[in-house]
Amino acid sequence: MRAHQITMLGTGLIGDFYTATLHSQRGRDRVRVVYSRSDERGAAFSERWGIPEHTTSIEDAVRHPETDVVVVGVPNFLHEEAVAAAAAAGKAVLVTKPLGRNAEEARRILETVEKAGVFGGYLEDLCYTPKSLKAVKAVRDGAIGDVTWVRSRETHPGPHSAWFWDGRLTGGGPIIDLGCHCIEIIRNFVGKGNRPIEVMCHTDTLVHPIADEDNAIALIRFESGAIGQFEVSWTFRGGMDLRDEVAGTHGTIWLNHFLRTGFEMFTAGGQGGYVAEKAETSAGWLFPVGDEVSELGYVDMFSDMFDAIDTGRAPQETLYDGYVVNAIMDACYRSAKARAWEPVDLFEWRGGETPRITGTHDTYEGKVVIKRETLPDGRVKMILKDPHSGDFTDVVVAAG
Amino acid sequence: MRAHQITMLGTGLIGDFYTATLHSQRGRDRVRVVYSRSDERGAAFSERWGIPEHTTSIEDAVRHPETDVVVVGVPNFLHEEAVAAAAAAGKAVLVTKPLGRNAEEARRILETVEKAGVFGGYLEDLCYTPKSLKAVKAVRDGAIGDVTWVRSRETHPGPHSAWFWDGRLTGGGPIIDLGCHCIEIIRNFVGKGNRPIEVMCHTDTLVHPIADEDNAIALIRFESGAIGQFEVSWTFRGGMDLRDEVAGTHGTIWLNHFLRTGFEMFTAGGQGGYVAEKAETSAGWLFPVGDEVSELGYVDMFSDMFDAIDTGRAPQETLYDGYVVNAIMDACYRSAKARAWEPVDLFEWRGGETPRITGTHDTYEGKVVIKRETLPDGRVKMILKDPHSGDFTDVVVAAG
Amino acid sequence: MRAHQITMLGTGLIGDFYTATLHSQRGRDRVRVVYSRSDERGAAFSERWGIPEHTTSIEDAVRHPETDVVVVGVPNFLHEEAVAAAAAAGKAVLVTKPLGRNAEEARRILETVEKAGVFGGYLEDLCYTPKSLKAVKAVRDGAIGDVTWVRSRETHPGPHSAWFWDGRLTGGGPIIDLGCHCIEIIRNFVGKGNRPIEVMCHTDTLVHPIADEDNAIALIRFESGAIGQFEVSWTFRGGMDLRDEVAGTHGTIWLNHFLRTGFEMFTAGGQGGYVAEKAETSAGWLFPVGDEVSELGYVDMFSDMFDAIDTGRAPQETLYDGYVVNAIMDACYRSAKARAWEPVDLFEWRGGETPRITGTHDTYEGKVVIKRETLPDGRVKMILKDPHSGDFTDVVVAAG
Amino acid sequence: MRAHQITMLGTGLIGDFYTATLHSQRGRDRVRVVYSRSDERGAAFSERWGIPEHTTSIEDAVRHPETDVVVVGVPNFLHEEAVAAAAAAGKAVLVTKPLGRNAEEARRILETVEKAGVFGGYLEDLCYTPKSLKAVKAVRDGAIGDVTWVRSRETHPGPHSAWFWDGRLTGGGPIIDLGCHCIEIIRNFVGKGNRPIEVMCHTDTLVHPIADEDNAIALIRFESGAIGQFEVSWTFRGGMDLRDEVAGTHGTIWLNHFLRTGFEMFTAGGQGGYVAEKAETSAGWLFPVGDEVSELGYVDMFSDMFDAIDTGRAPQETLYDGYVVNAIMDACYRSAKARAWEPVDLFEWRGGETPRITGTHDTYEGKVVIKRETLPDGRVKMILKDPHSGDFTDVVVAAG
Repeated sequence: MRAHQITMLGTGLIGDFYTATLHSQRGRDRVRVVYSRSDERGAAFSERWGIPEHTTSIEDAVRHPETDVVVVGVPNFLHEEAVAAAAAAGKAVLVTKPLGRNAEEARRILETVEKAGVFGGYLEDLCYTPKSLKAVKAVRDGAIGDVTWVRSRETHPGPHSAWFWDGRLTGGGPIIDLGCHCIEIIRNFVGKGNRPIEVMCHTDTLVHPIADEDNAIALIRFESGAIGQFEVSWTFRGGMDLRDEVAGTHGTIWLNHFLRTGFEMFTAGGQGGYVAEKAETSAGWLFPVGDEVSELGYVDMFSDMFDAIDTGRAPQETLYDGYVVNAIMDACYRSAKARAWEPVDLFEWRGGETPRITGTHDTYEGKVVIKRETLPDGRVKMILKDPHSGDFTDVVVAAG
Repeated sequence: MRAHQITMLGTGLIGDFYTATLHSQRGRDRVRVVYSRSDERGAAFSERWGIPEHTTSIEDAVRHPETDVVVVGVPNFLHEEAVAAAAAAGKAVLVTKPLGRNAEEARRILETVEKAGVFGGYLEDLCYTPKSLKAVKAVRDGAIGDVTWVRSRETHPGPHSAWFWDGRLTGGGPIIDLGCHCIEIIRNFVGKGNRPIEVMCHTDTLVHPIADEDNAIALIRFESGAIGQFEVSWTFRGGMDLRDEVAGTHGTIWLNHFLRTGFEMFTAGGQGGYVAEKAETSAGWLFPVGDEVSELGYVDMFSDMFDAIDTGRAPQETLYDGYVVNAIMDACYRSAKARAWEPVDLFEWRGGETPRITGTHDTYEGKVVIKRETLPDGRVKMILKDPHSGDFTDVVVAAG
Repeated sequence: MRAHQITMLGTGLIGDFYTATLHSQRGRDRVRVVYSRSDERGAAFSERWGIPEHTTSIEDAVRHPETDVVVVGVPNFLHEEAVAAAAAAGKAVLVTKPLGRNAEEARRILETVEKAGVFGGYLEDLCYTPKSLKAVKAVRDGAIGDVTWVRSRETHPGPHSAWFWDGRLTGGGPIIDLGCHCIEIIRNFVGKGNRPIEVMCHTDTLVHPIADEDNAIALIRFESGAIGQFEVSWTFRGGMDLRDEVAGTHGTIWLNHFLRTGFEMFTAGGQGGYVAEKAETSAGWLFPVGDEVSELGYVDMFSDMFDAIDTGRAPQETLYDGYVVNAIMDACYRSAKARAWEPVDLFEWRGGETPRITGTHDTYEGKVVIKRETLPDGRVKMILKDPHSGDFTDVVVAAG
Repeated sequence: MRAHQITMLGTGLIGDFYTATLHSQRGRDRVRVVYSRSDERGAAFSERWGIPEHTTSIEDAVRHPETDVVVVGVPNFLHEEAVAAAAAAGKAVLVTKPLGRNAEEARRILETVEKAGVFGGYLEDLCYTPKSLKAVKAVRDGAIGDVTWVRSRETHPGPHSAWFWDGRLTGGGPIIDLGCHCIEIIRNFVGKGNRPIEVMCHTDTLVHPIADEDNAIALIRFESGAIGQFEVSWTFRGGMDLRDEVAGTHGTIWLNHFLRTGFEMFTAGGQGGYVAEKAETSAGWLFPVGDEVSELGYVDMFSDMFDAIDTGRAPQETLYDGYVVNAIMDACYRSAKARAWEPVDLFEWRGGETPRITGTHDTYEGKVVIKRETLPDGRVKMILKDPHSGDFTDVVVAAG
């Protein structure tokens, strides 16, 4: 395991989260140089995190002789330029979400990195939360059978930086900001080899005076028949609502990443300061998160990325995954405009084929058993279907 | 307040729930006669609940000289006939959900009752849960501002009676069985005067070998711009999932009616019998509900119905409401088939007009304030939009 | 089932809760006359609840010719006088908690009623919450094996009426106010026939400038070896915390009656008014209760009382139970003062004998099996004890 | 920040947890050599975790030329010997909990390390859970005022290794196994400078055929008047219950570390294997923890220890803390035997003095304000105490 020296591009909130993670606990990897457009912000950032150097030149940053990894944490509209510089410098490049402002831009970014032959990673932290990793593993181990439906919800009262609100710079509203998380979470649960076929999306701008959506709901239909459902909003009140629900033919998973994680505090007031990302109040009942960089997946994400670099394997979240997410978001915007189901257009599908979800059914005296239910008195009621007439009957039998 | 004598039509699970409610606690109203197609089931039912008489004739039941109210708890395909008999007998008629198998049938039922001039009530219990009643009141009192989104979810592993599975007898699958609840819950939260405009619905049959859907998701767009979202399933694992979520411009409401209500029990086994409606296991962690007939709304529902009869007012849930629900469900089925948004067709709209949700926004130095956020250091960051250029900037100011 | 006409003594918060319950839903029993020391409060109360008459004379109230039941809802120091008057009038008497200010007073009240030969009931609502009733039934049905420990917790920021704070009028602080609930809840779970043997109690006055305790913790040891533990406080912040936890040899029960019942609301403010009994805030995250009179047990309590009167049986909660509770509270105060375990003194024990909790244990190759645990790899580890040497060993065997 | 090479003593479950933590994510510190009494277990352990060497000689292990830190993870009765060897080798020594089997042994261990002048750390992981760290910080920042009460609960169905059950080897039952965690958690919340004065403890052996307790409850009174309360059990059913509750004069904190952390899974069965430490079932509703080594505090614990070594400061949890915990546990055992409050005997108190909790109180028209409460109608009721007569009155005033 090598210790990596990192070029950090960007000093916004995401740069803080990334560097807080890298410099936390006993990690061996360190940020060596940070780039910011603003010398002042670069100086403050390097002071804050104990980084030896800062610069206002992307070129100088990515070509720093002691770094081997570039983390792209600049605003969306600068991703393509930053990735190109890093790839030209021959360094591993890790890009924050979303990969591009649209699928075309994401595809160009992907191709730039692949042509350069450098390592590429997609920094999708919420696919790496410890809960998600364990839950996805449980799904793969068969704990809930075939996945039929995934709901991923991410809502809060709106982003923290001005540029986030400008769809010209980001590519859109909360679909681009939050939906990218939800889509990739859904893909992890239904299986990344399960092709997204088409999308139905509704958007509206109900509260904020902006040109883009501030609320969106979408359904994604996958090849297996599974449905991914995401709900994103910049108008949610009460903090940041980060939940995933997964339904399978044999089980259910509910994950709550933020507002209900077993940490509850009532304060009559008097505590200044920071409770949790996007909390709305500092008195009354509050719901902090223990260690945000761990709970939100940053720790496991960087471990996967650096371990992948060290061992020459692909990371869990690749730039191709980032491209697929952009393609689905493009379909969402098209669908919201057309008010119709829209296909997901992919220049290339790198997954395989996934069969349709199918059930197997017992029979009882020549009829198909639809359902068994234990009655209050302990006996078992079976619902039966006659395969010929289509008629349904029930029968009550002794338990066992 | 008069004591009512009731004719109960039907001896299935819903008849049990209704009679358990009416005969619970210190209620003054009693079931006087019960009708069942089967003499055996009628006898067992009257024995079980201490009902003086049972009959296999609907006519005899509704014309019983001592009853003044008829409760229709027979299967969906018999509602029209039962209501007609009750109305002809000049008695108040309370009909279980859904009103009809489709909007046309529901409209005929509605008109039959209105022409007869008798009292009609729609037995939609889940709009009467104590949590729902208090939450809807909070919404009306302005606690969460304008409602922008309501999610109502009802899922379980499938119904308990054979006829429920036969769409020819019921009108469909879980949309008809469960979606009718969700739709009316949504209407209560967005406001019953808020016209449902159109519907987008996705259905699939993923697990059970049946002709109708076993899973469905729908979006309902209301005149105000609010979106109602329902998720229904007959393939959910883990019990009965009954949850509502309401988002408003100034607040949020989360209701959990079944699996997480503050009653948690682990048992290593050994307890026989009934835990809760549609629980799947009798060992391990179980989540019973305290008093099902109260928590599921039956108590408040009948109180409203009988009080309405006594005082000559309309009940909270009318047969017209039942008709609107059927009309929305018809639109859902059309939408799922057409894979397109479909209008909600109503022969008559009895609500008013609801204005579009609109926000008001502060300004700061000539710019629109998009958002205020407290930083870790206590200062306040404002996101501002220039109304002319559409550019966004942020500014950090001292608190207060 | 008869319809009862009730004399209500007292117009404080408990009188409101009682009458709200009696006059709720479709109940057949009504308050006919209300007594208050203050004519003004009596008039307001009867206006509020539609009660035909009010009086400032206890004698007139209890001797009202049309009432057959007297509900004693006056402050603690007036219970004895009120009960004596009601008993002398030959009427059923239902007394609010605690029965007396101490065991001696409670014993006199009990004997007064028993000598008069009238029906007596102890209005201990929290033993009648729907969750408690179902949980106690599950325990009796064997769902969690032998009960080893019960924790009952009731804490809030302090009572609502001035006289509650004056130990001279009530008998003490939160032990008297809240501990009486906890003790009887505990008795229901460990079994009412399970004799309370001795008590260890710690009290302190940490926050409020009062002569009595504002915090107390006690352990009650029962004949079976089970431990009851209660925590009461008038200094809790965040609302009213009402929780019970029950541990058994084969299971666990957790009940939450107030702050986490599946009803969660965030409001940015703007809603005036009443959220729930003893809530501390009207903005931020709030946790209302659906129907307080049902959830807190009042509905089932009065049903039990009136049904008991109608059928000539004893109610679930008798005046003797109230006496036992007072005797345990006396022991608590003695223990807190002596800082030692104190016996529970009862003039008469009306329960039976309860055997010591004992386990049965499997053996494996001549050793006692202490525990089985499934390992990550699926095999089973057994901890074994050699009955002769007292040495412990473990052995890992294949599953099954 | 140096990279440390570690000697690991012990290959039991705790050795696995420690090494899993040290070798997780991108940590710079590695286990270099592991000691086990059994060559076979040592070989398996080093294979499992990629450790270069293993040995059956404690001396060889602690004197390994490339290690600078010794982690003592052997059973309790071997701590003293292991620490002595490590201290003699002049290396930093980190000791698992509890420090000794009793205070006398703990004192000798402490003095051995202090005389040797090497770094000593007490591996009390549960004081380092991310939730605990953030909660303790909130308390120190004044979020809940003065702490009046801390409940720490740790219960499960019993330990996983044979020697744990033998009080001769460990020092006792669940007080020694689990109470040590609870006590130190409590000390962190009430303040480590807050001297523990005396203890009241009840123990019993209700289920398992062992010589030591299998259940215990204790109260610890601190100098400030704050009460620590712990509940430990080896007979809990349902998994591992790890909860802390903190009451303060201005707020409340509830922490749930295990069974309710926002990760809920229902499985109809079919998943083999490991869900979470001490889960009891592998089907039905399960409550896994995301990343156990992070959630249980191991990650932050080792970071604190190694950072303390690197910077020459004391760690959060010192060997003296371990000694204090043993002294409190000794008092618990004495108290349980004597059935009386017992003083906590400390050979030396290294904290300061802590003043008694005191409140300040507003006055209104010459009377002390006991409590303010908002009424349903919006007005404010104040409870007032006359400082001379001790009489209480209430007054209702307009809001504001």
